[in-house]
Amino acid sequence: MDTLKVAIAGLGTVGAGLLKLLQDNHELLAARCGRPVEVTAVSARDRRRDRGVSIDGFAWYDDPVLMAREADADVLVELIGGSDGVAKAAVEAAIAAGRHVVTANKALLAIHGSALAKAAEATGVSLAYEAAVAGGIPIVKALREGLAGNDVTRVFGILNGTCNYILTEMRATGRAFDDVLAEAQDLGYAEADPSFDIDGVDAAHKLAILTSIAFGREVDFDGISTEGIRHITPLDIAYAEELGYRIKLLGIARKTEHGVEQRVHPCMVRRDHPIAHVEGVLNAVVAGGNFVGDTVYEGSGAGAGPTASAVMADLVDIACERYSPTFGIPAARLKKAETAALERHVGEYYLRLHVIDRFGVMADLTSVFRDERISLEAMLQRGRDPDEIVPVVFITHETDEASLRRALERISALDHVVEPPRMIRIEPL
Amino acid sequence: MDTLKVAIAGLGTVGAGLLKLLQDNHELLAARCGRPVEVTAVSARDRRRDRGVSIDGFAWYDDPVLMAREADADVLVELIGGSDGVAKAAVEAAIAAGRHVVTANKALLAIHGSALAKAAEATGVSLAYEAAVAGGIPIVKALREGLAGNDVTRVFGILNGTCNYILTEMRATGRAFDDVLAEAQDLGYAEADPSFDIDGVDAAHKLAILTSIAFGREVDFDGISTEGIRHITPLDIAYAEELGYRIKLLGIARKTEHGVEQRVHPCMVRRDHPIAHVEGVLNAVVAGGNFVGDTVYEGSGAGAGPTASAVMADLVDIACERYSPTFGIPAARLKKAETAALERHVGEYYLRLHVIDRFGVMADLTSVFRDERISLEAMLQRGRDPDEIVPVVFITHETDEASLRRALERISALDHVVEPPRMIRIEPL
Repeated sequence: MDTLKVAIAGLGTVGAGLLKLLQDNHELLAARCGRPVEVTAVSARDRRRDRGVSIDGFAWYDDPVLMAREADADVLVELIGGSDGVAKAAVEAAIAAGRHVVTANKALLAIHGSALAKAAEATGVSLAYEAAVAGGIPIVKALREGLAGNDVTRVFGILNGTCNYILTEMRATGRAFDDVLAEAQDLGYAEADPSFDIDGVDAAHKLAILTSIAFGREVDFDGISTEGIRHITPLDIAYAEELGYRIKLLGIARKTEHGVEQRVHPCMVRRDHPIAHVEGVLNAVVAGGNFVGDTVYEGSGAGAGPTASAVMADLVDIACERYSPTFGIPAARLKKAETAALERHVGEYYLRLHVIDRFGVMADLTSVFRDERISLEAMLQRGRDPDEIVPVVFITHETDEASLRRALERISALDHVVEPPRMIRIEPL
Repeated sequence: MDTLKVAIAGLGTVGAGLLKLLQDNHELLAARCGRPVEVTAVSARDRRRDRGVSIDGFAWYDDPVLMAREADADVLVELIGGSDGVAKAAVEAAIAAGRHVVTANKALLAIHGSALAKAAEATGVSLAYEAAVAGGIPIVKALREGLAGNDVTRVFGILNGTCNYILTEMRATGRAFDDVLAEAQDLGYAEADPSFDIDGVDAAHKLAILTSIAFGREVDFDGISTEGIRHITPLDIAYAEELGYRIKLLGIARKTEHGVEQRVHPCMVRRDHPIAHVEGVLNAVVAGGNFVGDTVYEGSGAGAGPTASAVMADLVDIACERYSPTFGIPAARLKKAETAALERHVGEYYLRLHVIDRFGVMADLTSVFRDERISLEAMLQRGRDPDEIVPVVFITHETDEASLRRALERISALDHVVEPPRMIRIEPL
């Protein structure tokens, strides 16, 4: 077969990593692809920057969209990032020109995935994005092909390494969120503007993609209830430990009687669940199916090497002519996304209050729970300190989120409750 | 596209599970395959047995080889088992007749995989076997396609659920091997003749397959050093716990300076490694590559549902015309297998002796280690009991296996050593 010609848009750490991978593993790639794979064109902001790899042999384009349209290439690898703008324009141009697309762009897929899938099918090209979810872990392939025999019941996981690193460090050292975040920024694990990561947006992008593959639905990023980790305190982490849990930021999609739930938020997970042991910048995904049961996938969720590995897996598939519909089934057959409202979620909850330690406070609190028909599994008030502020923790039995939110609102308004109560969902997993 | 017609040879629990899966998930399979998948023919020992699913609509063959040759089918699913005999004959007949093959038969692949891969390529058919390794975990696909960009450095894992169940129960309850084995047989987790599982043969079959995919080599089952778990005692498990380890039966293939190591044996693994937390009948595989780092895969390694799930994944690939060379590269390019001798293995070792508690014993023992240039990291002798038999444990620093074996031979011959010393390799992982 002919050489597979590749044009790369974006030469940051991942782009440079991909060039290095193509160089280092050249021989075995030729064997696995059954034909040569060669970079023919590249585009980036700065032609002269030192990337540790040479780009001399490749046609240079200042404009990635022009490259996508005109370069001598069978595949566009899009590593620019961002849901719109030039990344989207380049991908659309490549598809329109009948070229395959490989992208690491989770935001683009999460927001425009359904439309792009239709466009790719219309021109008969592959739109591949293994690198967009969980970095080097081949979870897209596992879910779309490896579990293709199953009616998938749920998919969830640790989808953001920055948050997992921060939560791991907070637990290991007892330090506060802001402190650990600053350290993560110094180490390059968090961006200067960290909100995309720590507010759960990045995890939600990835979850939107996984949900579509798992349930054969159009992407529905807007339907995801998203909560980040800014409000997690060392106190909550210590209580979690005491109660036998770990706090993890999870993205969760699962079938319920009200439809598919899609949510990203901090969770208390039992310490003996595999996901509780996934620490630092690692990612992990659990996918459950009606025949296979639960399967777990773990590895590096980011970084030049793992991301380049995932991009290359897509290129090998294309070189071998192994094509899959973007989300596992033809785009026209994807169901309209109907995401269940989080208010209908039913589960157990961890609640932590700060109250002034006086007689009668507990009676006020428990009467709120009684009124909202929320039954309690446990209450913890360590130590006494009359007239001072003390923490109180409640664990509820299963209750619906709407009732719980009403209770929290009423509790916030109570006299001796001194700051907004904190709630963390307990996931049975 | 036309209907994909499937002939199934072998209707035990997995075959019946596959029929059930095709029925239960019929609608979503049609969407994922892009065309109908239909069973047209079946073959099994007993036509009348109640399998919980109807086989009325399918052509019946008493002879699976005849079915493989003559049935109206595009694919043969071989679920008979066994490395030779009728399973091999049926697979060969199907390949010769230009039909794709999907098999769950690890023994067949481990022993005849290279020849079958060549045969399949010669007639242009797919030989797929996701179900042969680690049941429902899509590890074959992950390794062959998902990590295709990587020079794989190692692959190892818990490949036999029976052994992992026994070791888990022994640790949890403190009971002896024979006792737990009998229970596992009652529960259906172990066969009446358990030797295939507990002597490591089944794990070695799976490791032979993984090694070929990982390193692009011909299968080399005979080159695997295999040791089972019969000799593991509650005492060793207790020492492992005390030293911060868990004992797991692992299959390990990795690149060393002397070539690729392939070995199956009980290992001490650090308790904080993900693999240490894989308990009961679960399987798990770790695959490491030069760009992706380590990736971990966990799930059910056996059972009707998980195995049917894996068989179905192969069928969906074939329905979608996603073909891969059997071991990831063309059969003619597979390297001759040259497995490094275990004598050249270098690692740390746990040694447990029973000695008569007398002055001078320790001096005799340590002089053997000195002569063989084995340096010790730790020695444990709990309690004293003059003139009685007491256990003594040594942990060595890194040493080569040849020296260690010489030391063990000399130690066995010492006067006050009352039974053969036990050795368990410590895996740094």
